[in-house]
Amino acid sequence: MTDKPRLVQVRENVLKHNDVLARELRQKFHDAGVFVVSLVSSPGSGKTAFLEKTLSALHGKYRVAALVGDLATDNDAERLARSNAPVKQIVTGTVCHLEAAMVENALDDWNLPELDFLFIENVGNLVCPSSYDLGEDLRLVLMSTTEGEDKPLKYPTIFNTADVSVITKIDIADAVEFDLAKAKNSIQSVRPGMRIFELSAKSGAGMDEWLEFLQSKSAKTVLASG
Amino acid sequence: MTDKPRLVQVRENVLKHNDVLARELRQKFHDAGVFVVSLVSSPGSGKTAFLEKTLSALHGKYRVAALVGDLATDNDAERLARSNAPVKQIVTGTVCHLEAAMVENALDDWNLPELDFLFIENVGNLVCPSSYDLGEDLRLVLMSTTEGEDKPLKYPTIFNTADVSVITKIDIADAVEFDLAKAKNSIQSVRPGMRIFELSAKSGAGMDEWLEFLQSKSAKTVLASG
Repeated sequence: MTDKPRLVQVRENVLKHNDVLARELRQKFHDAGVFVVSLVSSPGSGKTAFLEKTLSALHGKYRVAALVGDLATDNDAERLARSNAPVKQIVTGTVCHLEAAMVENALDDWNLPELDFLFIENVGNLVCPSSYDLGEDLRLVLMSTTEGEDKPLKYPTIFNTADVSVITKIDIADAVEFDLAKAKNSIQSVRPGMRIFELSAKSGAGMDEWLEFLQSKSAKTVLASG
Repeated sequence: MTDKPRLVQVRENVLKHNDVLARELRQKFHDAGVFVVSLVSSPGSGKTAFLEKTLSALHGKYRVAALVGDLATDNDAERLARSNAPVKQIVTGTVCHLEAAMVENALDDWNLPELDFLFIENVGNLVCPSSYDLGEDLRLVLMSTTEGEDKPLKYPTIFNTADVSVITKIDIADAVEFDLAKAKNSIQSVRPGMRIFELSAKSGAGMDEWLEFLQSKSAKTVLASG
């Protein structure tokens, strides 16, 4: 017995179960030599546009694929499929985040050793995904210039659980009076030393630096470019 | 005994408890003659700017106050306090939504009959708040022109539990290539007949229509303007 309230107990068990599955997934990804990147952000911050550009840039040179989570619709999978990479939609219903089990199920009929990069786009939400490890190697948290500079301060947990920040829609920064220095300060005050990319999927600005960083992470860089 | 999984059972109990509290709150609001409006949206959609303008416009003519929910910081309460209306911050920690009990606690030392309008700004999240009734008379779901036109399709539950839609940041619609007709279609396909306001807190466009609608809802309209 424990003094903890029942809901807290049940939540902890669910999270522990997720952690065990995520650890197994991470091992599986590692064994297969696939580098796994997850993306979290608010709804509408430009995750899908950014991912579409990333997939298109890597496709041909690397073997890439994506899973994409949404409460409803397969709009994002349709958009991402334009990159010609294999894409699968995970529909979560009313669940506000992806879980390791959903990722595992979605990967069921994919042969992981045939992939160099796997991208997992989470449900648009700056709160819930922070608690769920998906076995990824790298977690990106995206924020757009339209959302205001204080989002890291208001949603510190998600920035703390992420490895890299991406500031999107930098092409309209002036139009929305975005203060880049202030946004960077917000990020650094929550997560000192965090790597930050500033880019625009639309104009292409900053994409090269991001793609270079990403390619340096793949174990198959030499193989793929050789 | 029931066949439902334990987590589902516990969640249902939590939600039922919230519904009971919300019903009591709604009765209390009704008895006090205060009209209660809640606001839900993604992070960064402009809820606080919109609310600040609304409070400033009503303050003096009506007795207005606001509660504002965030995981961390009291930035929003500080911003809203510039309207000179009484404002209280609810810090939720890691909880992704407001609950009726949080609202009840925050109102503890306020005298409701002295208010005409109470606004409750929820945590920035298009998923979790949909399940929690706060006893409000009117729930607004906001989406900004920067988020894309498909958000109602991807987050249908929150649009279904709201009474009115507000499209914000209409002043930069052209800069972000926002398709208003497409967005309205998305809303109407999820919630046919839903009232939609298009406005900009920054330019003031559309604010008059919204304020007129809001004032028509107050039981104290005649009293306050007489």
